[in-house]
Amino acid sequence: MDILIKGTVIPVTGPGEILRDGVVAVRDGKIVYVGRPEGLNGFTPERVIGGAETAVLPGLVNAHTHAAMTLFRSYADDLPLMDWLKEEIWPLENRLEAADVYRGTILACVEMLLGGTTTFADMYFFMNEVAAAVQESGMRASLCRGLIGVAPNAEEALAESREFVAAWHGKAGGRISCMLGPHAPYTCPPEYLKKVAAAAAELGVGIHIHVAETRRETADILKQYGCSPVGLLNVCGLLDAPVLAAHCVHVSPADIEILAKKGTAVAHNPESNMKLGSGIAPITDLLDAGVTIGLGTDGAASNNNLDMLEEMRSAALLQKAAREDPTALPAYKALQMATIGGARALGMGEMIGTIETGKRADLILIDLRKPHFYPPHDVVAHVVYAARASDVRTVMVDGQVVVDGGQVLTVNVETVLDNIRESALRLVGRPRERSLL
Amino acid sequence: MDILIKGTVIPVTGPGEILRDGVVAVRDGKIVYVGRPEGLNGFTPERVIGGAETAVLPGLVNAHTHAAMTLFRSYADDLPLMDWLKEEIWPLENRLEAADVYRGTILACVEMLLGGTTTFADMYFFMNEVAAAVQESGMRASLCRGLIGVAPNAEEALAESREFVAAWHGKAGGRISCMLGPHAPYTCPPEYLKKVAAAAAELGVGIHIHVAETRRETADILKQYGCSPVGLLNVCGLLDAPVLAAHCVHVSPADIEILAKKGTAVAHNPESNMKLGSGIAPITDLLDAGVTIGLGTDGAASNNNLDMLEEMRSAALLQKAAREDPTALPAYKALQMATIGGARALGMGEMIGTIETGKRADLILIDLRKPHFYPPHDVVAHVVYAARASDVRTVMVDGQVVVDGGQVLTVNVETVLDNIRESALRLVGRPRERSLL
Repeated sequence: MDILIKGTVIPVTGPGEILRDGVVAVRDGKIVYVGRPEGLNGFTPERVIGGAETAVLPGLVNAHTHAAMTLFRSYADDLPLMDWLKEEIWPLENRLEAADVYRGTILACVEMLLGGTTTFADMYFFMNEVAAAVQESGMRASLCRGLIGVAPNAEEALAESREFVAAWHGKAGGRISCMLGPHAPYTCPPEYLKKVAAAAAELGVGIHIHVAETRRETADILKQYGCSPVGLLNVCGLLDAPVLAAHCVHVSPADIEILAKKGTAVAHNPESNMKLGSGIAPITDLLDAGVTIGLGTDGAASNNNLDMLEEMRSAALLQKAAREDPTALPAYKALQMATIGGARALGMGEMIGTIETGKRADLILIDLRKPHFYPPHDVVAHVVYAARASDVRTVMVDGQVVVDGGQVLTVNVETVLDNIRESALRLVGRPRERSLL
Repeated sequence: MDILIKGTVIPVTGPGEILRDGVVAVRDGKIVYVGRPEGLNGFTPERVIGGAETAVLPGLVNAHTHAAMTLFRSYADDLPLMDWLKEEIWPLENRLEAADVYRGTILACVEMLLGGTTTFADMYFFMNEVAAAVQESGMRASLCRGLIGVAPNAEEALAESREFVAAWHGKAGGRISCMLGPHAPYTCPPEYLKKVAAAAAELGVGIHIHVAETRRETADILKQYGCSPVGLLNVCGLLDAPVLAAHCVHVSPADIEILAKKGTAVAHNPESNMKLGSGIAPITDLLDAGVTIGLGTDGAASNNNLDMLEEMRSAALLQKAAREDPTALPAYKALQMATIGGARALGMGEMIGTIETGKRADLILIDLRKPHFYPPHDVVAHVVYAARASDVRTVMVDGQVVVDGGQVLTVNVETVLDNIRESALRLVGRPRERSLL
């Protein structure tokens, strides 16, 4: 289907590159033209979307999440990290069945699509169900099975990962790609990391891993191995693969140099890092060193939503606060991180992340006729500092309209909500004081 | 008119006090019953609002803003503080006319109401226009004319303030109250502060002032007077009045003790402090010392929206990040700050801020049937960590429904948007690169 999109196009190809009253032409899932309407030669669209007071942006890329953890949204907040994991989250995760993961993931897809996120990187388990939810929702995703090297099923999980890659890599019309997902340096011993690195090379896929999330992790790794988490991964050869390193909160200048040299991409999760009290990642230093940075929400249990517009704002504000410098991480850089930065971090930089001819058509339309967008002094600053998920009206992934007029077209949302309630109730057993289950 | 509101009532009277399937009865602008429906004796409402999957909360209180600065939203971002003020904001403010301030304020009122804010504390100029906008919008507000003690018109401005208090204090059916607004310790010399304190005592009104917003202010005051900004205000007798002290970012333990002893209330503005790189206020220390704390957005030029739900979330996340402690400022405390804390800070703690029999009916209804609120494990955590302005469906101020089904009833929003565009265009002259003016 040929679709024409009209509006103020923010292609994310340069800080000042804004195309007022522009058009984007989409054919066979691809962007075939971006520019002034008068440059459109013989394109007769079957549908025209957008118009005045509409901003057109690349779909947002959530570079690190555990989608199915929507199941635990607001279940246990404001607790010390280890109590939260050990006493609250892990016991519930142990009770998860495949159907719950499907339900949690499809809910996450609905929420992300409604907020303009078109692609996400996920690490969890029951990954066939995750992939099925992605396929059904129409989203794009990079998926990996989480691997705990110290667990009794470590080898089995790696074998499962191979099967998962064989089954899903490049599937759903190319919307699903796969990675290997060793959980973290503190849960995967060096020998296991080496094995994963070898498997990634053999399979031709990237690696998604948590790195240097907490001060404690960094101290423990130093004590155990005499080096930093980043250093350990480097020594194990893991960074020779294309790596998506989530968090990198506690990284030294030497670590940053390694990440830059190895081309390792970082997924920054400002709200999760804040909520869990993990610390503040040195994002401006990482950017200065030339490290590719994407932006992520992490799981809904530590956020508690999957709103990438909000995450952009938090990313920009947090760097300014940490450095007491209002010029740190300006709006456009936050927008880059949430689009092309994330796309590159997921190995999709040639395919999505900007609005350019030849790329796949992952596009979102934001309604600018809102009080909180007035007066329209700076449309980029508005998107980063003032926008919210509900401003997204239309979402297209791979040329397919999946959200129209603020409604998801691919999934029955009422059923998703009813199912998740049922799963949540079974998982927790007895609802707590402020629960409405 | 007798109105009955149904839903899950979060009265903000205790962290676990949630009334599932409760009702709030409103008569003559007042809350006359809160509880189970079966306890309603002979109340025959003319209208019933809410129902299943609705949260009912006290209206949010924006404890510090400059409403008309919506005119400068996104006009100049990511700049060093003094360049931003001197080269960008002040030149535009010099061009402001009374009509612009009315337009900027009514836009702010619309935005705040749509996001569940029912009351705000404002410091600006052309305050008659601000009061007119408040009256028209149906909001509640505490208003003061900003006073620059070092300006040539300092005496005239104080005289104007007296007239403003005489004209508006207690007006708009009691929805408008007034304060005196000495801008800050660094713009108001001690003699002037003493004069303002005396005038406040004589008029029986409180004082709204910026205090210790930046590291530089604190250093400059120390150099000039040998004490902290808080210490200076104390010595001048200013803190003998009911004071609403905005910011208090750079306060020492001794300052905190003074604030607690004097009953000075603090308006915390996390997003503005972050965006301007001002620093991180020691909110948990202030709370521990027993200081009353409200939450504010500050002006839209440094935020860039007036979304108090977002501000709550940022407040909670920022304290956790600053202290690397996930238990710092839990959800309920953030909610308290945004409701009863702000109400007390504005001297309205007996009148609004909680849902209790006898209080004025300032209430908001949030639609919980949304993907980002599922599953409903904890309704308070959901409101603080996951909600957004667009989740607010109904807003009542002083018993009047002013937002219904997400639409403002008191103001023609389309006219407001068109007018603000016209004012903004005149003020800036030539629009900038990313402007859509």
